[in-house]
Amino acid sequence: MQRLIKLKEPIPASGKGKRASHIYRVAAEIMCHKGYDATSMNDIAEAAGLTKAGIYHYIRGKEELLYEIMMYAMDNVEQGVIAPAQEVEDAEGRLRMIVERHTKSVIEGVGAITIVLEEMAALTAAHRRAITSRKRAYFEFIRRTLEQLAEEGKLRSVNPTIAAFSLLGIILWISRWYRRDGKIPPQEALNDYMEIAMNSVLKMENKTARRSERPVQA
Amino acid sequence: MQRLIKLKEPIPASGKGKRASHIYRVAAEIMCHKGYDATSMNDIAEAAGLTKAGIYHYIRGKEELLYEIMMYAMDNVEQGVIAPAQEVEDAEGRLRMIVERHTKSVIEGVGAITIVLEEMAALTAAHRRAITSRKRAYFEFIRRTLEQLAEEGKLRSVNPTIAAFSLLGIILWISRWYRRDGKIPPQEALNDYMEIAMNSVLKMENKTARRSERPVQA
Repeated sequence: MQRLIKLKEPIPASGKGKRASHIYRVAAEIMCHKGYDATSMNDIAEAAGLTKAGIYHYIRGKEELLYEIMMYAMDNVEQGVIAPAQEVEDAEGRLRMIVERHTKSVIEGVGAITIVLEEMAALTAAHRRAITSRKRAYFEFIRRTLEQLAEEGKLRSVNPTIAAFSLLGIILWISRWYRRDGKIPPQEALNDYMEIAMNSVLKMENKTARRSERPVQA
Repeated sequence: MQRLIKLKEPIPASGKGKRASHIYRVAAEIMCHKGYDATSMNDIAEAAGLTKAGIYHYIRGKEELLYEIMMYAMDNVEQGVIAPAQEVEDAEGRLRMIVERHTKSVIEGVGAITIVLEEMAALTAAHRRAITSRKRAYFEFIRRTLEQLAEEGKLRSVNPTIAAFSLLGIILWISRWYRRDGKIPPQEALNDYMEIAMNSVLKMENKTARRSERPVQA
């Protein structure tokens, strides 16, 4: 798997952590293909090349596994998107970094992990609260950035909440269709998504969001 | 339920058809809340105010019901969005109508029905093929409209496939968060979504996508 931009690995890259992240990716793909409820721990063990006893060394059960996959996805967002974007003082540069890094992670990553993030109904109440709180923190980070852009006169004349959900819709929907080995190369997809997403919410006038013409601030 | 713009009712508005569409809406909401597999026919019958025997008068089983909900959703898209948009010769006007009518239907309709459209894994192979083919036809309709706009020099310099999926991401994601009785009134949401969606893919220059300032062609 090509991972989120080169950053510190959200999951330790050796030993148990590495095998766990392999299981997460395989499990997310099976859950998307068969549906969460129809997927058994046996299916996951088989696809991950582990015995059923072996998989229980890493994971306690299916709900726990789903929760771990979601926590892993949110770790990636927090470490690969939020943390570096928080370092960018300029609101437009910060938005550009959020959109670019999140888009890149969905384009280059395992789409199934993004899709599995929607399986909230299958979580226990405590786990659902934990994931909801992390999702909400990310949403609020985007919304505050858009509010700052509104104050600077750069946001289109739209409600920042609607603008934030529009950006998330554009980015998260990539997981439903994009295949790295399909007709559109990852770099072209990233460039076009940057152009579309930045223009969707910002008054760009004669500026362009394309990386090829205007390097992304990093 | 407020329905798609005032058009001919996709489902006959009396007798069995009307009760069926009530069951679809109730069932979609339970499926979203509890998850498809965890929802029983009993849950649905109870929420719809029918006996278990009563519900089997309308629906043969849970997979059949899921399929019927998806067919109903696609009927709404075809009759409420595609059919009227096909009458619009001008590509920009056609895109505006697609975006406006689909956005309005998600804002005013039952978000759960849009979300349930993603439950493809639970369908039988034949049902999955039928739904996939209808979704694909809609996607191709949007993509061809964007290709025409590219020929007219109105599309941003992006791949029409990516532009089409971006629009769908913006519109379909509304179902994940928007509540008609929340802080943002439906008309404001529709206006802002029009502004964001049209600007995301088209070079709008000094034009605006807002209905209040520039009436939508109909």
